[in-house]
Amino acid sequence: VEELRVKSGEKIALIDITGAVQKALEKIGLRDGLCNLFAPHTTAAVMISENWDRDVTADLLDQLQRLVPDRPDYKHAEGNSQAHILSAMLGVSINIPVRDGRLALGRWQGVMLAEFDGPRERVVRLSAIPSSG
Amino acid sequence: VEELRVKSGEKIALIDITGAVQKALEKIGLRDGLCNLFAPHTTAAVMISENWDRDVTADLLDQLQRLVPDRPDYKHAEGNSQAHILSAMLGVSINIPVRDGRLALGRWQGVMLAEFDGPRERVVRLSAIPSSG
Amino acid sequence: VEELRVKSGEKIALIDITGAVQKALEKIGLRDGLCNLFAPHTTAAVMISENWDRDVTADLLDQLQRLVPDRPDYKHAEGNSQAHILSAMLGVSINIPVRDGRLALGRWQGVMLAEFDGPRERVVRLSAIPSSG
Repeated sequence: VEELRVKSGEKIALIDITGAVQKALEKIGLRDGLCNLFAPHTTAAVMISENWDRDVTADLLDQLQRLVPDRPDYKHAEGNSQAHILSAMLGVSINIPVRDGRLALGRWQGVMLAEFDGPRERVVRLSAIPSSG
Repeated sequence: VEELRVKSGEKIALIDITGAVQKALEKIGLRDGLCNLFAPHTTAAVMISENWDRDVTADLLDQLQRLVPDRPDYKHAEGNSQAHILSAMLGVSINIPVRDGRLALGRWQGVMLAEFDGPRERVVRLSAIPSSG
Repeated sequence: VEELRVKSGEKIALIDITGAVQKALEKIGLRDGLCNLFAPHTTAAVMISENWDRDVTADLLDQLQRLVPDRPDYKHAEGNSQAHILSAMLGVSINIPVRDGRLALGRWQGVMLAEFDGPRERVVRLSAIPSSG
């Protein structure tokens, strides 16, 4: 049972937490199974994305804001409905396979905390689940 | 192994099932791990959303219908392609961490059955997965 | 620990892998729990969709391309930002309950490898996680 703390510096951003998750996993000592990451927030998300070319994440964040614009006519009075909708669409929970103690990600994949209503300090809860056999 | 039954009263709605999931979890007796919720349906979804201000869920459902409108020119003859597409986009499976026997949700998070082709009776399958250590 | 290999023949396609996943599950021998499927790719996804009427998947792929068009003005120089964005939106990891050795899918559900930048050979990693009790 581990918790990561992630600080975001902008309103909307993807923050690569792959290294921090890998370190937490080593403390827990899971060899083979699943690592679940869960963000207990309603205006952020946890996702996997290309993490090598920053143009990819720029294109992604731009397109997400086209899909869910920051419209002035949302009903929710706090003015952050865009963030709530993107959080619900992209999800706050993800499972990553673990093999020989390491996140079994693809070569170009990174684990991202997606901030949609920053800057804030966010929490990511990590659960280590052993596989059978 | 538990199954929840959820009745929807409208065509499109978010139904808060957090309390029912928590009760089922207590019957099963999982202390620490993951709770997986799975909807065996192709026109509904399971998701996490803000559950306090009803304006947030209204904004969410409105924006989802803008993204995937109920167009007259879908090929699928049954007339519910909108529901199939939203189900596939939002997903029918979610994992929530469990700590000390309770869903470790954030303060504003609720677990929702998203109905896109109601009114119907829906099923949500619950799997209790212990964590390591 | 199993890996499936999936060949895609087109740029954008949904490929039904339900049968292959079920066979892999039988080799592993999991009776009750969760089956996690993970695609170590940034231009593909794993999802659950209606798998009976091909018009449903045609409508789904058409609508996804309307939401995330193959725009000429993406920044990413490789020209496959559409695929990266759809992969991040739809996700590369899914959990399916297993009961009595079988995927506990609904009658109309199929497990799909979603290809957004084919044709390619893709990998799907399978993790078998036993449930408690």
